[in-house]
Amino acid sequence: MKFSAERATLLKALAHIQSVAEKRNTIPILANVLMQATNGQLCLKATDMEIEVVETVPATITREGATTAPASVLYEIVRKLPDGVEVELDQTDSDGQLHLRAGRYATHLNVLSVDDFPSMGAGDFPHRFHLNGTILRSLIDRTRFAISTEETRYYLNGIYLHAADIDGKPLLRAVATDGHRLARVEAEMPAGAAGMPGVIIPRKTVAELRKLIDEAPEEISVALSETRIQFTVGPITLTSKLIDGTFPEYERVIPRNNTRILRVGKKDFSDAVARVAAISQERSRPVKLMLEPGLLTLSASSAEQGTAKEELDDNRISYDSEALEIGFQARYLNDITDQVEKEVEFCFADSASPTIVRDVDSPSALYVLMPMRV
Amino acid sequence: MKFSAERATLLKALAHIQSVAEKRNTIPILANVLMQATNGQLCLKATDMEIEVVETVPATITREGATTAPASVLYEIVRKLPDGVEVELDQTDSDGQLHLRAGRYATHLNVLSVDDFPSMGAGDFPHRFHLNGTILRSLIDRTRFAISTEETRYYLNGIYLHAADIDGKPLLRAVATDGHRLARVEAEMPAGAAGMPGVIIPRKTVAELRKLIDEAPEEISVALSETRIQFTVGPITLTSKLIDGTFPEYERVIPRNNTRILRVGKKDFSDAVARVAAISQERSRPVKLMLEPGLLTLSASSAEQGTAKEELDDNRISYDSEALEIGFQARYLNDITDQVEKEVEFCFADSASPTIVRDVDSPSALYVLMPMRV
Repeated sequence: MKFSAERATLLKALAHIQSVAEKRNTIPILANVLMQATNGQLCLKATDMEIEVVETVPATITREGATTAPASVLYEIVRKLPDGVEVELDQTDSDGQLHLRAGRYATHLNVLSVDDFPSMGAGDFPHRFHLNGTILRSLIDRTRFAISTEETRYYLNGIYLHAADIDGKPLLRAVATDGHRLARVEAEMPAGAAGMPGVIIPRKTVAELRKLIDEAPEEISVALSETRIQFTVGPITLTSKLIDGTFPEYERVIPRNNTRILRVGKKDFSDAVARVAAISQERSRPVKLMLEPGLLTLSASSAEQGTAKEELDDNRISYDSEALEIGFQARYLNDITDQVEKEVEFCFADSASPTIVRDVDSPSALYVLMPMRV
Repeated sequence: MKFSAERATLLKALAHIQSVAEKRNTIPILANVLMQATNGQLCLKATDMEIEVVETVPATITREGATTAPASVLYEIVRKLPDGVEVELDQTDSDGQLHLRAGRYATHLNVLSVDDFPSMGAGDFPHRFHLNGTILRSLIDRTRFAISTEETRYYLNGIYLHAADIDGKPLLRAVATDGHRLARVEAEMPAGAAGMPGVIIPRKTVAELRKLIDEAPEEISVALSETRIQFTVGPITLTSKLIDGTFPEYERVIPRNNTRILRVGKKDFSDAVARVAAISQERSRPVKLMLEPGLLTLSASSAEQGTAKEELDDNRISYDSEALEIGFQARYLNDITDQVEKEVEFCFADSASPTIVRDVDSPSALYVLMPMRV
């Protein structure tokens, strides 16, 4: 195998590749990138056996062939080469090493056999549709903060993507929850997605996919089966196993009859939360909201440090229901208001029941937040 | 005590204060800031018993007095207040809390008795001189990377500042070493510093001082005794204990007869070091320099990953002594070349002896680097 490619082209592909390659090094071949030079193209591939990324880049192929080399080392080397340089990679069977040359720089990298490079095995994808990158990004960004990190609740360790039919309108829904808060975001059902199964996309896949969307927010092809999902973003294909579990029937926890409605500017609210929460340095520090018509008082206290409160009056908020006191974890409030553009709406039932939070300007997203005793 | 101050003024002072205040919280009062409102000024003070910082800021004093409150909480609160707001702090003896108000935000902070706030005790300072901030910054920046972090060699855990008389020329010298490399930087002797004792300024003091210089690179007053050093930067006074130890006779390790001279562009050299070192991910990864007239070859190897080399020819380097092979830790080379502006000069003896490194355009700094076997 012998080929050359422009440094920037190679670097961009290796950045995706090394991100997926296994870093823990328990199985050496999983730390390697598989490079296949055929038909005037270079194809790079990495997998951790849960996710596989394949990327095709233009290269000048002098001799066809394939090899594998350490992904992160190759990435670091190419990253440090001067911009604009042509990088030549050459492997002859005589010494079993991969030779990289760029100007007067040369490395000889140890390789592992192409035969040992594992295939994750994708199988057939009975469901295929296209999604606009901007829409997929919005589905991810507004739900991923709520993904659970509790390994024992593995069925919550991802985003649940499924088709829903709401009042006769077909929708694609992304849902995540950790039991304390839930995020549900909707998009129009893309053509071809109607019969798709509900699937749970693992956290790492969500993170890798999110990076790819940032680079090319164009149309993304989605293919899926009961056990695999595949995203094609330009020259990159990301295939992932799905979480083998049942996502809870989340609609049951979304309250229907919350009638006490607070509207408040997102910045006014989140600044006030940050200021009152600053009194405490605990991670789960609670903030209490005290509501009465025309007045929201936020407060927090710490046995060690003291107490803090801030008032937002009817110049800043609108509330005209009965008085109410309710507490939430400060960071849960912030995680949700971070998703809101300008104005946030809270729908409360009482101080012990789940609260609904919405972005006033974006009805496609709905958040549920469990209160805590304060 | 009752006073008010502009948020930005208070924030800037609290940033310095909370940085010095003890974070580990073993002795609660050390986590507090002492605030004294007298004579139309607010004086803030924090100490960890090794360093003490005192800062005076303008404030509108309504009632003179003093109190102490948690430094980091106060800093976090003030940081989150809106820009331009007037902050009022008020403590009456009735409830023993410090009340902070800004607009409709209010906190009640627990305080600790002013009487319990410790004084580090400075004593007399028989030596006093002034140093330009830019000069002090250059003394610190070009030596601090070489400060030892080995606690057992406590006498190397700082910068050794002392007066030297070199060929009849009085100089102020800053020196740091960890046994593997040494940095020695000189400045003109400031008036009044001639009789100063050699002092070892602890690492944390160096770091705090360095931050203050960035904000006000003006003239800095230095006062010192055998056990204390005090820096006055505008309205801020930083007093520190000195390391009670004897700095080694460093001149002995500076070789005098290194005659093989290599000159190379700083960027060419450090880029090449980074590229060849990328083959290995070990922290102490060595880079080998192979020299012959008109050619420098850098190389590195890793049993796991392979080998790398790069050549710099006589378009990039100048070397006309006998051939030489010598190895150094990659990060030690980088730490030194990071201090060099454009062109770096190496003076070698042989492959086992200390090497001298200089910035060609800045003769006031000299570095010594121990080779490693490769």
